[in-house]
Amino acid sequence: MKFATSPSEIERRSMEIIAPYLADYSLTAEELKVYSRIIHASGDVYYAPLIKISAGALEATKAALLDGRDIFVDVEMVRTGINKRALSKLGGAVHCRVADDEIKKIAVEEKITRSMAAMRSFGRALDGAIIAIGNAPTALFEVLRMIDEDGVRPAAVIGVPVGFVGAADSKKELASQSTVPFITVEGTKGGSPIAVAALNAILYIVNSARN
Amino acid sequence: MKFATSPSEIERRSMEIIAPYLADYSLTAEELKVYSRIIHASGDVYYAPLIKISAGALEATKAALLDGRDIFVDVEMVRTGINKRALSKLGGAVHCRVADDEIKKIAVEEKITRSMAAMRSFGRALDGAIIAIGNAPTALFEVLRMIDEDGVRPAAVIGVPVGFVGAADSKKELASQSTVPFITVEGTKGGSPIAVAALNAILYIVNSARN
Repeated sequence: MKFATSPSEIERRSMEIIAPYLADYSLTAEELKVYSRIIHASGDVYYAPLIKISAGALEATKAALLDGRDIFVDVEMVRTGINKRALSKLGGAVHCRVADDEIKKIAVEEKITRSMAAMRSFGRALDGAIIAIGNAPTALFEVLRMIDEDGVRPAAVIGVPVGFVGAADSKKELASQSTVPFITVEGTKGGSPIAVAALNAILYIVNSARN
Repeated sequence: MKFATSPSEIERRSMEIIAPYLADYSLTAEELKVYSRIIHASGDVYYAPLIKISAGALEATKAALLDGRDIFVDVEMVRTGINKRALSKLGGAVHCRVADDEIKKIAVEEKITRSMAAMRSFGRALDGAIIAIGNAPTALFEVLRMIDEDGVRPAAVIGVPVGFVGAADSKKELASQSTVPFITVEGTKGGSPIAVAALNAILYIVNSARN
């Protein structure tokens, strides 16, 4: 068998293959990087028409990263996928509480999901921070409630929960509010690699501008 | 807002929504669980026609799990997603070496991907074990080479690498060999959550049969 084995070569060829699928979209160079990386991570060019980046969302996320702000995530797979070395260069860290014993206890007592209990527990620590939700619609609904009712003000929300119960609705609600900048995808698709792809794309943009 | 917050209720409703999309496939009850969980994890019903489970693959994976065999994976996101509590009840553990310093060194020296170097380093430890590849086509190509040239005999390969460079080819090659039982999906789509979904579905089947 003959196949590409150099990581940089694989990435370059992948981006070349994806480019024509994005030719009809009017995207900035940075938006193009986010779109390309989402399609690269999913192997699914049909993500292109589903992606929504609110005006100023990339600027707000970049500014927060440059400011050393932390990232709060719903599930461990998102934490795992985020490039922590790139993030730590900027002074930021990733927080995930979904597996904490205290959170499990609260979730059982209140009959809510663990990721929802985890998001609620972060409280005002979310102010100025980046939120990345790759799995749980309930976590995104809770963040939207905290923005609306508690006045919490994250720098940006990358909200791409996945599935058939609540995911599409939670993302529609994220896209219909104008208080907090956001990145999302329409419909049932999404997931940890999509959240990770969007965030890492922005991390690379920020770090390569600094080098 | 009103939305489902009970994890068991969300899961039940999700599976109800997915069921009609699988009605036209002739699947065993266990295959149905694997298909449903992949669609649940991706939010993408168009996975259904892409999934391929070789004859005996579920039996082989179940037997290996029951025998306490380990799981070898290509990337940390797959390790993170596998239900380690369910696995450890059976005596198994997950191995991933993609982030090891030694592997990085070998990858740079040999100009190959780290996940390919990591798979190669496992050698005969793969005999009788389960392999789950969720990201890197090069890792799957290497496993196929080890099966073909080195006579390595894993119990089963769950091979669902993602992307536009090599992923479809590597999975086609997996599906065209008949030495090792496999689970895969056709084409460019795939990813860590797909590998995790297939494996956790089988873990739940095995553990619920034991309870």
